Amino acid sequence: MTYKPGQKIGYLGGGQLARLLSQSAQSLGLEALVFSVHNSDPAAQVVRHWHQGEISDSAKVVEFLNQISVATFESEFVDIPLLKIALAQTQCDIYPAPDVMAQIQDRKLQKKLFDDYRLPTSPWQDLPDQRSLENYAQENTFPFVLKKRFMGYDGYGTFMIHNPTELKNFIKNHWQENLYIAESFIPFKKECAIILARSLDGSLTHLPFVESHQKEARCDWVRGPLAVKKEKKWIKKLFHFLEQINYIGVMGVEFFLNKGELIINEIAPRVHNTGHYSIELEGFSQFDLHNMALLGQALPPPTKIRGGFAMVNLIGNGQALQIKACSGLHWYGKQENKIGRKMGHLTVTAATPQAALKKALKQRGELGL
Amino acid sequence: MTYKPGQKIGYLGGGQLARLLSQSAQSLGLEALVFSVHNSDPAAQVVRHWHQGEISDSAKVVEFLNQISVATFESEFVDIPLLKIALAQTQCDIYPAPDVMAQIQDRKLQKKLFDDYRLPTSPWQDLPDQRSLENYAQENTFPFVLKKRFMGYDGYGTFMIHNPTELKNFIKNHWQENLYIAESFIPFKKECAIILARSLDGSLTHLPFVESHQKEARCDWVRGPLAVKKEKKWIKKLFHFLEQINYIGVMGVEFFLNKGELIINEIAPRVHNTGHYSIELEGFSQFDLHNMALLGQALPPPTKIRGGFAMVNLIGNGQALQIKACSGLHWYGKQENKIGRKMGHLTVTAATPQAALKKALKQRGELGL
Repeated sequence: MTYKPGQKIGYLGGGQLARLLSQSAQSLGLEALVFSVHNSDPAAQVVRHWHQGEISDSAKVVEFLNQISVATFESEFVDIPLLKIALAQTQCDIYPAPDVMAQIQDRKLQKKLFDDYRLPTSPWQDLPDQRSLENYAQENTFPFVLKKRFMGYDGYGTFMIHNPTELKNFIKNHWQENLYIAESFIPFKKECAIILARSLDGSLTHLPFVESHQKEARCDWVRGPLAVKKEKKWIKKLFHFLEQINYIGVMGVEFFLNKGELIINEIAPRVHNTGHYSIELEGFSQFDLHNMALLGQALPPPTKIRGGFAMVNLIGNGQALQIKACSGLHWYGKQENKIGRKMGHLTVTAATPQAALKKALKQRGELGL
Repeated sequence: MTYKPGQKIGYLGGGQLARLLSQSAQSLGLEALVFSVHNSDPAAQVVRHWHQGEISDSAKVVEFLNQISVATFESEFVDIPLLKIALAQTQCDIYPAPDVMAQIQDRKLQKKLFDDYRLPTSPWQDLPDQRSLENYAQENTFPFVLKKRFMGYDGYGTFMIHNPTELKNFIKNHWQENLYIAESFIPFKKECAIILARSLDGSLTHLPFVESHQKEARCDWVRGPLAVKKEKKWIKKLFHFLEQINYIGVMGVEFFLNKGELIINEIAPRVHNTGHYSIELEGFSQFDLHNMALLGQALPPPTKIRGGFAMVNLIGNGQALQIKACSGLHWYGKQENKIGRKMGHLTVTAATPQAALKKALKQRGELGL
């Protein structure tokens, strides 16, 4: 499978993921088009063809999609029925397929997918009404976790319930019928993640497992490669899963690591923060792989990583920033340095993951973030 | 020295060098602005702020420079007196300084610089009139080289004169008073090159020496690192040269390698094709270094390169192109695939420079270029 230099590829969304996808597309010889709200959005800054619009504005989405033959999402939190109305009016293909996206964007359906494909995950329960929540609390031990079915990321929409008082407060302040699922709390030691990709031509590949560290429910750093138990079996299982749901593109999978065993926490149907390090590795980045998958390019077999790497996020602190250039820096061009906002990341390679992380944290310190 | 994220940096020119500089600037958190003729120019495709204009149009140049505090050239072939008129009307700084550029853009003054700073180069002679050319031919042996003082690159404006007939033809077809210099022909075995950089804060750095291979007078491939005799002495000499002429930015230096001795062929006051490989190396690329130099950032000491690397140019063949994604690919987004045109490049790293080149040439073959 080949493509024409200058072939167009469209990104719905203008954040850092669309920015890094656009930059990859440009290096591969594609013309990246971005659809987003503000022309100061991170991705809007790095392309010639930026299209203003809200993703809920079907007419504008159609206008955008009419200019391209293939597009992808930056975020899974898209109104799928609305998008399907827009798609019906264009010839443009979009991946991952909207029906797949609809399943993954809903934690309840995502959990069902895990169960259907026998992917180990924490026990969970649907909560259609308040009685089901009360029953769940009686039948299970504290703590447990309540998760909003939609729009949950970076810890938003996740509630850890330690006791009956907290449950009562939750019901008072947040509860809505059919909007949450309950999950057992997994006492994990570490979290880890992996990037997989499947192309339109059916070829599959993956990047190495990595350890990911959260701070205030947000990815703080990633280091790798990480050796995990039953790695081959896991890859096989996940490849099978991608094939069965006919998934196209990059998928990020996050795990809890408990007593050496992996348990899937969640999946993201897109390029993922835990895969940003791949820009600095030999071979293809996750952004390249996603673009290639959408074009039906053959994905390369996984490569053995020499040495270690680490990626640290640069999180906004609300102050007036003055930074210094550092190697492996990817600044996202966000206009406001808000507290808790992902402003950029940086990647360091070294002899070991530990050494890389140490160096990366030092560089972050020097940036004042 | 620090900078504000979003600080603006301007590029005069819209080709691949400005494109790769823009992409580096964006990753570093700078806002890249491009001034060029067509909005389909390689660099115009990857920035939000593109400004239409010819560099000979002072009013448009002033308009552009008025928006930024620092700018740089993509090409040394700029009408310096005209540019100085524009610069006098703005607060914008431009590097390398126009007076330095004026010396380097003229082969005669460039050769004088080499002599002034005792940088070994081939013997040469000024040719103010036809008699001086005839005298030169009588006093020297064939072959010798006649080079146009201005606008010579990729072999343009260079004439190898093997005998009196060729000299006669040259005089008939090309000769103009004071437009050429004569140079002894250096029977070289190899060509090599190095990238150096000097920042506004005075700090200096360099990338490794590399072997460069020309095909039809155009860079075909580069591999490195290359061990050369008296490397430390050369670096010291070149650093001294940059300091003495108060050079700011990246400089590419090209050498002939004759019996193990280096002889300078020419210098380019900008990022250079022989330094493109640095995007894929650990640490900073030549594009990062150039941007950092313009901002007065401290340049890092040279890093030891592990293993080898190779960069191959992707030269247009005039045919309708269909390419495949490959790792380390940088496609420039040129609209027309003209014969002999630099369409992109790709970089491969491997255990040795030889292995890297072999792999890179294989990848190029698969791209059909």
